[in-house]
Amino acid sequence: MVMQARAVRTRQSLVQAAAELFATEGYARASLPVISERAGVSTGALHFHFASKSDLAGEVERAAADSVEELAERCRSAADTLLQSLVHTACSLLLAVVTDPVIRAGFRLSGDPSRKNGAQMLQWWRTWVHDLIVQAQREGELAQDVSVDAATTVIVAATAGFEVLGATDSDWLSVDRVTHLWTFLLPWLAGSPDHAPLLSGIGESLDELSE
Amino acid sequence: MVMQARAVRTRQSLVQAAAELFATEGYARASLPVISERAGVSTGALHFHFASKSDLAGEVERAAADSVEELAERCRSAADTLLQSLVHTACSLLLAVVTDPVIRAGFRLSGDPSRKNGAQMLQWWRTWVHDLIVQAQREGELAQDVSVDAATTVIVAATAGFEVLGATDSDWLSVDRVTHLWTFLLPWLAGSPDHAPLLSGIGESLDELSE
Repeated sequence: MVMQARAVRTRQSLVQAAAELFATEGYARASLPVISERAGVSTGALHFHFASKSDLAGEVERAAADSVEELAERCRSAADTLLQSLVHTACSLLLAVVTDPVIRAGFRLSGDPSRKNGAQMLQWWRTWVHDLIVQAQREGELAQDVSVDAATTVIVAATAGFEVLGATDSDWLSVDRVTHLWTFLLPWLAGSPDHAPLLSGIGESLDELSE
Repeated sequence: MVMQARAVRTRQSLVQAAAELFATEGYARASLPVISERAGVSTGALHFHFASKSDLAGEVERAAADSVEELAERCRSAADTLLQSLVHTACSLLLAVVTDPVIRAGFRLSGDPSRKNGAQMLQWWRTWVHDLIVQAQREGELAQDVSVDAATTVIVAATAGFEVLGATDSDWLSVDRVTHLWTFLLPWLAGSPDHAPLLSGIGESLDELSE
């Protein structure tokens, strides 16, 4: 039982260390000896848990997807409307890119050319946004002239852009910059000038997350 | 004189081969022997022209920036208004990411964690968009309630996002998807529902480029 708990901790340390290195150095440059050293485990232990670097990256991507899904569900259950949960999830996600190395690595691996077939995170995000927009349209939360495809395209592109720009300039992942985006997206999506209640929640929702 | 022309050709072949490899494999994985082989030159010739991989990447980035600036100037001189030149430049840029390996590599290196200090392309694009929006505001082309910062943020984030999403899913770099973006951005930027003339030019401008 004690051994099992230790194995779980070792695995988690390896995933954390790998995530940090994948995000800062890229997939190709991250080396297994450096990862095991950072995690404070032997290379033997690393190979006991993960057969290859690709395996380890797969585990980082799964852990990132789990965290993001959990975050999306939390935002969903706290929100009064679907659009509100969209705004809060998108904002929380960008903040999580700053504060959580695993989520950051999930996105970085998604756009890293040296990690083939690694675009799960961006694909997941596209599907999530699309499904939410479809539901919002059904519930009458979207303006009449907004198409589901156009809305999904703009939201997914803008948030993916924030992430890639934020990787080299952290200003992009600030509440101010993120609020710029939604101040502009919401009136168009909701077709109502009264989007203040949706936006006012951004700061609070980010505060909660950083606690 | 003949020798000089040959040196220029060798240099160009190396830049092209390097651009292709940087874009598909990432900076860390692209190896100098593979680049020289692809360029059809000896590794000695490569080292005669470029002291290191970082040097070669710098040359790819410069070549990409030159091409993009030229493209932006062409769009500017063909456009009737500043907003029109913005739309055409942004659309042409996304198409150029598909058709021109050097421009594609310029953007990919900009977001590649294994290429440190490589974000010039995205920074250049941000400055270019910002300056154009400032001018458009001065010329009275922007809607009254649009702030320069908000407009720059949304346009730069969305176009950077298209590029990163397009790297793994080429659907993102299609005229349809790009038109979605601008159908939505223009009414907000120009504050006028009559943006059809601006959008109608997209297809033609892309056609010209692909010729």
